[in-house]
Amino acid sequence: MPQLPTLLIQVVVILLVARLVGWIFRRIHQPQVIGEMAAGILLGPSLLGWVSPAISSALFPIESLGFLNSLSQVGLLFFMFLVGMELDGRRLLERRHTAVLTSHVSIIFPFLLGTLAALYLYPRLSDERVKFVHFALFLGAAMSVTAFPVLARILTERRLLGGEVGAVAVACAAVGDVTAWCLLAAVVVLVRAYDSLAPLWLTVFGSAAYIAAMLLVIRRVLIGLQRMYEKRSAITQDLMALILLLVFGSAWVTEQLGIHALFGAFLIGVIMPKEAGFKRALSGKLEDLTVVLFLPLFFAFTGLRTRIGLVHGGDMWFYCALIIAVAIVGKFGGAALAARLTGMSWREAGAIGILMNTRGLIELVILNIGLEIGVISPAVFAMMVLMALVTTVMTAPLLDLIYPPRLRRRDVSDSGAARAA
Amino acid sequence: MPQLPTLLIQVVVILLVARLVGWIFRRIHQPQVIGEMAAGILLGPSLLGWVSPAISSALFPIESLGFLNSLSQVGLLFFMFLVGMELDGRRLLERRHTAVLTSHVSIIFPFLLGTLAALYLYPRLSDERVKFVHFALFLGAAMSVTAFPVLARILTERRLLGGEVGAVAVACAAVGDVTAWCLLAAVVVLVRAYDSLAPLWLTVFGSAAYIAAMLLVIRRVLIGLQRMYEKRSAITQDLMALILLLVFGSAWVTEQLGIHALFGAFLIGVIMPKEAGFKRALSGKLEDLTVVLFLPLFFAFTGLRTRIGLVHGGDMWFYCALIIAVAIVGKFGGAALAARLTGMSWREAGAIGILMNTRGLIELVILNIGLEIGVISPAVFAMMVLMALVTTVMTAPLLDLIYPPRLRRRDVSDSGAARAA
Repeated sequence: MPQLPTLLIQVVVILLVARLVGWIFRRIHQPQVIGEMAAGILLGPSLLGWVSPAISSALFPIESLGFLNSLSQVGLLFFMFLVGMELDGRRLLERRHTAVLTSHVSIIFPFLLGTLAALYLYPRLSDERVKFVHFALFLGAAMSVTAFPVLARILTERRLLGGEVGAVAVACAAVGDVTAWCLLAAVVVLVRAYDSLAPLWLTVFGSAAYIAAMLLVIRRVLIGLQRMYEKRSAITQDLMALILLLVFGSAWVTEQLGIHALFGAFLIGVIMPKEAGFKRALSGKLEDLTVVLFLPLFFAFTGLRTRIGLVHGGDMWFYCALIIAVAIVGKFGGAALAARLTGMSWREAGAIGILMNTRGLIELVILNIGLEIGVISPAVFAMMVLMALVTTVMTAPLLDLIYPPRLRRRDVSDSGAARAA
Repeated sequence: MPQLPTLLIQVVVILLVARLVGWIFRRIHQPQVIGEMAAGILLGPSLLGWVSPAISSALFPIESLGFLNSLSQVGLLFFMFLVGMELDGRRLLERRHTAVLTSHVSIIFPFLLGTLAALYLYPRLSDERVKFVHFALFLGAAMSVTAFPVLARILTERRLLGGEVGAVAVACAAVGDVTAWCLLAAVVVLVRAYDSLAPLWLTVFGSAAYIAAMLLVIRRVLIGLQRMYEKRSAITQDLMALILLLVFGSAWVTEQLGIHALFGAFLIGVIMPKEAGFKRALSGKLEDLTVVLFLPLFFAFTGLRTRIGLVHGGDMWFYCALIIAVAIVGKFGGAALAARLTGMSWREAGAIGILMNTRGLIELVILNIGLEIGVISPAVFAMMVLMALVTTVMTAPLLDLIYPPRLRRRDVSDSGAARAA
């Protein structure tokens, strides 16, 4: 087992750096998770590998990355499951008037802008092995993401969850999450079908059958599990085993269908009964280990793949700035305009726009998938990681600027929707 | 990431089979964990690989085993930490009269028998690449193990924890655990020093310095962490991160010292403050995922290495039977005699002997280490896995036979010492 010492020291270093940078970010009024994302970049070739290639290759030898990856993938499955659990269909229905319009505009607008930008960027940043349609669709999908967990964390920290702005933002982000993942699933299916990994008709019909089975059959199983919980008021180990089986099983099915394993874990979370006690008990079992241990491993793994050095020279930095600008204009502009149209004040609509512009770690998840299926190059990956960081970091200070505490309408009922961040 | 689908289906199959066989074992009044151990063997070359090599190699391709292993190693670290947490020095002191004598005899006697058996077995089952001294010491250490977690689980299920027999058994097993791990650490150090992986003096002095630092410095840090817990009455994510850092850090140090990573995780657990609320909150965060997800992965990984087919022909089965007999006579005989000498009735002393004879999964952990450092061959490994299974399976029925419920003295205060099983 020569890999064990390496894995141990990797975990120690990653946890240390993640907590440290996370703590620094908290001190400058940024959510901890952004610091942890940044910590991952620092441990990769962009900083550590550049300052000291010797330390970097001793700490992260290439043959060890598979193990780090398998750990972080398992953690991401739990994480997407927890994110799915935070989506509550009933709460969305209450807000459907504003939420549906705002969220759809805040997806369609950046999606269109993203595909437009692809027209300019494709000949400059891609090659003929990637089809234009795939590149454009992926860019559009990646532009239209909102990081539901980071958003919820920011709202909780600023005590905005109970107010109108917070409620609309959460609802929009939730609808947006589901839509963005559907878009992404479509892109993955198209690209993989082109590589002829699985026949397209199988993926399409299989996915439809799978979603139907989830809603009609598995949903009932889950309600049965919730009753098991209520009988004992505790998550027994049998119950836990069944839930883990469903999460891993669903992830495996979606992976086989050619979508992506994370989609399956997310969907199980979405259709989970949302009774408060059950939800709290279940996330209590999974959340801490996921957030404290596995997510930093994922950030580090992402950071190891991010080579900011690939973005060099005036042209490249221009493309990078363009990507960031398109992301901000598309998401902030689209969401703010739509919110204003539904009757919010400019200030409130602006706040919604800023909040929806948070890309956070969901963007990192999507970018990793894009890199794996080869639809974006390492250089585009680095640019878009920067975009994710910039749009996430700007959220908190801009929010305090446009929508300062003294102007906030709010009621007191802070909900638990921010737990999985 | 071609390994992700494989890893997912492995987890699904392992969880399913482990729960299923575990459930069957519960129906025949055996602890679930023994069923899960057996499930691991069934998935390995001893059954699945023999019935259908095609399915076996599709499900567990050799190149995927590293990932399974890295997951199960992380889980074992948590598990050994939890086992260490269950050891409570103060409770041991209360029982020192019976516990110290019984536990030491119940270690020394099987250890001596084991080394004696090695005289006969070494020329027949080992080769000159392994020194006789190492082989004999390892056999002795492996014979003298008691599975603290399985023992605690059996005592809880039979409501024996509060009684005299239960208390003495737990105390003995606890002392035995620590002694056996020290023995094992010594063997690992000797063998590795022979392979000149780390200079012996460094290991010896380093270990002494490490243990001193743990008792004098880290112990205080841990008491500080417990105070952090008491202030909030909750394990915050910062606190969780610090504890995980200590567990992984300590594991890394012991691994570097040439002992073994698991020893470091175990020791952090041992010196953890044992205040009930803190202990319960902390194991609540780690236990379920460890027991439900990671341990079955470890059992499956062990099973994949166990080739019962290597034990073939009359001679081999005779050696195997000899190992099992020596293990039972040594541990059961030694513990029962010592307990009788301290003034227990024959029946009670017999019950103690049977309980101490439980090898359980701690034996599997030790055997895996032995196989890794090359001190036992795959054939001896298979024999000793059988020994672990036999001695563990026989515990519950024999206990009910020798010490049936109607004869049991007991008081009511069942403690929580059986949580980590």
